[in-house]
This record gives sequence, structure tokens and C-alpha cells, in this order.
Amino acid sequence: MTTAPSPTSGFSAFALEPFPEVRPGDDVASAINDVLSRTGTALLDGDVVVVASKVVSIAEKRYVDLADVIPSVEALDLSARTGKPAAVVQLILEHSTEHFLATERGPIIARHHLGHLLTSAGIDRAGDEGAWLLPVDPDASARALRDALVTHTGADIAVVIADSDGRADRRGATCISIGAAGVAPLRLTEHGGKRQEETFTDMIAAAAAIVLGQRGRGVPAAVLRGVGYVPSDVGVAEMLHHAPTTRAATPGKPSPSGV
Amino acid sequence: MTTAPSPTSGFSAFALEPFPEVRPGDDVASAINDVLSRTGTALLDGDVVVVASKVVSIAEKRYVDLADVIPSVEALDLSARTGKPAAVVQLILEHSTEHFLATERGPIIARHHLGHLLTSAGIDRAGDEGAWLLPVDPDASARALRDALVTHTGADIAVVIADSDGRADRRGATCISIGAAGVAPLRLTEHGGKRQEETFTDMIAAAAAIVLGQRGRGVPAAVLRGVGYVPSDVGVAEMLHHAPTTRAATPGKPSPSGV
Repeated sequence: MTTAPSPTSGFSAFALEPFPEVRPGDDVASAINDVLSRTGTALLDGDVVVVASKVVSIAEKRYVDLADVIPSVEALDLSARTGKPAAVVQLILEHSTEHFLATERGPIIARHHLGHLLTSAGIDRAGDEGAWLLPVDPDASARALRDALVTHTGADIAVVIADSDGRADRRGATCISIGAAGVAPLRLTEHGGKRQEETFTDMIAAAAAIVLGQRGRGVPAAVLRGVGYVPSDVGVAEMLHHAPTTRAATPGKPSPSGV
Repeated sequence: MTTAPSPTSGFSAFALEPFPEVRPGDDVASAINDVLSRTGTALLDGDVVVVASKVVSIAEKRYVDLADVIPSVEALDLSARTGKPAAVVQLILEHSTEHFLATERGPIIARHHLGHLLTSAGIDRAGDEGAWLLPVDPDASARALRDALVTHTGADIAVVIADSDGRADRRGATCISIGAAGVAPLRLTEHGGKRQEETFTDMIAAAAAIVLGQRGRGVPAAVLRGVGYVPSDVGVAEMLHHAPTTRAATPGKPSPSGV
């Protein structure tokens, strides 16, 4: 597999806005297509469409009512230590294979079943009553979204699904990729015998986050134009040290692994 | 301190190239200014100039000859376990306050005296014989570079110093900020009572890395144009959980802390 794209000397990024509110069951590709039509924006071959994982979760109805979650003894204990609601802790445990506390009081860093090491296993609070889980298979979501956008627009584009995450050494959330289609997740460059492998789709997600990550603006999608990349459908899972494990148990029930 | 900048709907990024080879003692601001002159490029108010930490290290003569480094017993032991040269391990220990192995065989993740948690404490190999240390004080380097560029160009710009680093869950290097001037490192947005703090200069570094991070292209500097930000000189240190500690001991001698 070749992962050395043509060099990128420059690129541009722009928000797809105004973006409609996405509701459970909505089709994200149609929403994007509507924005493109309304704003007279054409996607071009080679564009990378970056979408916030939250809207994919909403479209995929990944909402969990916290009242339906029964915390285990371990969740109650971890809740007492971190101050995090027990039902949320239970969801974190159910959707991860291992976890640790960044400091004595948290946050809880957990290895999601998909293989990503994420703050709170990627569980996103929805007010006091609910939570959003990650998309079931973000690489598959990215492929479906890419296929639909290619059909809609006729442009040979790539899709990256971006999620926010923290770093152990600093305050604030950064942005990484949890799903990708049409773009190789790693970029490999070689020179004078030295070889460098980069988390390319993470850089794409972070660049898009400059536009996306502004709470309250309601912009869950952006386009990067002019980025050289190697087309590939291997997905972000390819760059993870941990392959995805068997899917999590039904929300609200303890997972089979007992964690 | 206000950290909510005007929203960014779009931005562009471009490489400063061709860039001359930077040699120990060279002035990075002059090198950038030469590229701007030769290519007829003008910096504009609000531009963010992103520079790879490596060239700042080179300009600051942060080279260490590995033959001059005397490994401690701890470095020899860690070298045997990880397969990393003992002299490099010694440098890692001297420039960090704590460390752990990501897996049994490494890499060594270390808390640099500056407060950053970095693969190999940010030590960069220079062939078999040497290594590059991080800039002494990347925020100060960024401030000096910014001052010089503002003087040279008359444009009110910001500077970010970018370094590559890994993530525990995935293959490949990503790019983060280790120094900044003229731009607040964290971006704060609020909406409907929800507050989000983002590692903004890390996003800027990652976006620039799409252009920079291609080994062999010799492009250590890029410009981001159109990014809304809050001017500030607090530096990247402001977003770290760990404040910088007393500087490391002289290379080649065990550090006072005994690590």
C-alpha cells in the first residue's frame, strides 16, 4: 500500500454553514447536500469533508437515557472517587476494555471497544438525563457518508469523522479522527533513509476543528480543499495499536467482560 | 482574560518554500524574511506563522554529541529494556521529571522539564552520533521570533512552534504546539451554559503539519491565514497541567533530581 501522497504546499478550509439541526434518524449526507445547494457550494475532486462525530451519533440514534442505566458496584465506586454520575461511569465501563484515571479525581481515560483511548470512552453528556455514545462503527459511517456524497455531488471526495479528546498533559480538548473513508489514515514520507509515519487524518480533524470546534455556532461539518492524500478505505482502525474488540453489551446491562 | 475570538468560518494554509537549510546559530526570523522576499509573499495582520521546533533547536545550537553523554545505571537499564541507545536514554532522563513506557519495550514517554508529556522527552536523533534537544524556552523563542517578524514585516502576526509527538493508542506522529506568542493557546467558547476549552494552538500546529510534516521537503515553516484568535503572550505553558520545573542539568551529567 502506497501512503506517500503528492506533497501539499497549501490548502484551504471552510465551514458548511448555516447547517440545519440534525435530529435522531436524520440523514447526514442529505443535510450536507442541502447546505451545499443552499449556499451554491460545489464539492471538488480531492476535497475532504470533516464531520463532527456528535452529529453522526445523533443521526444513528446513539442516545442513551441515563435513567435506564443500572450502575454496577464498580461504577458506583468509580463515581464516588471521580464525582462523575454513576450512570455515565457505567456507560464508560460498558464501552471500554480498560481504563485509568488521569489524576486521582479523573478524568477517566478509557480504551473504547473500537480501540481508541478516549476521555470518558467518548461518551458525550446530553444534558442531565442522557448521553451520546460514539457511532457504532465510525469507519463504516464514513464510508456510507462518502458513498452518498459521491452519488449526490459527483465529486471524488474523502470523509473524516472527528471527535474531541483531551491530552494528559494539558487543559482543553483537541480533535482527532475516529473514522475515515477515501483517505489513508497514516501518511508515510521517506527521505535519506529516514521514514516518518504521521497520523494524517488526526491532523485533518484538528485543522477542521479550527472551524468546527466553536460551541454554539452549530457548524458540525467543514471542507478541506487542496490537501494531497492517498485514497484508501482502510479506515482509522488501521492506525490503532488495538484492533476493535467484540462490541459492547447493550447499554444498561453490565458488559460480558465484567469491566 | 478573554479567550473567545471572532469565529473562524474558513482559513488557508501555505508553506514558506523553498526554505534555506538552517544551520546552528542562524537567525530563523531572517530566514523566514528571506523566503518572504524571494517569493514576493507578504505577511498580513492576523497571520499565524508556524515553525517546526527542530529548526528553532538548530538555530539555538541545541545539539548534543552522544559521545559526551555518560549514561547512568538507570539509563543503562532502561536502554537494555527498550533497545534505545543508552546515551539517548540518559538525555531523556536528564530532561524530564518522570517517565513511563507506553509498552514493555517502549517508547519512553517522559514529562519534559517544560511540562509537556512527550515521546523521548522531545529528544530528536541527529544521525547515530548526536541528538537535538528542545528549544530552551519555546514560548520565549516564539516571542523573539514574533518580535523580529513584526519588525521585519510590519504585520501584526502570531507565532506557534510545533513539535511532533505520538499518541498512546495509535501508530504515527501527530503535531502539537510547544511554544506560542501573540495567540492565546486555549480557545474558550460558551453556549447555553456549556463551556468548551480547546487546545487551540495544538490545532494550529496540526493544521500546519499537513504542509510541514513531509520529511524531505525541507519546509519547516508555514502560514495560516484567516484564523480568528485572541492575541496573547501567555504562551503554551499556560495550558499545561504541570508548570515548567527548574531547568535540566548540563547534558552529560546526571540531573540534580537523580532521574
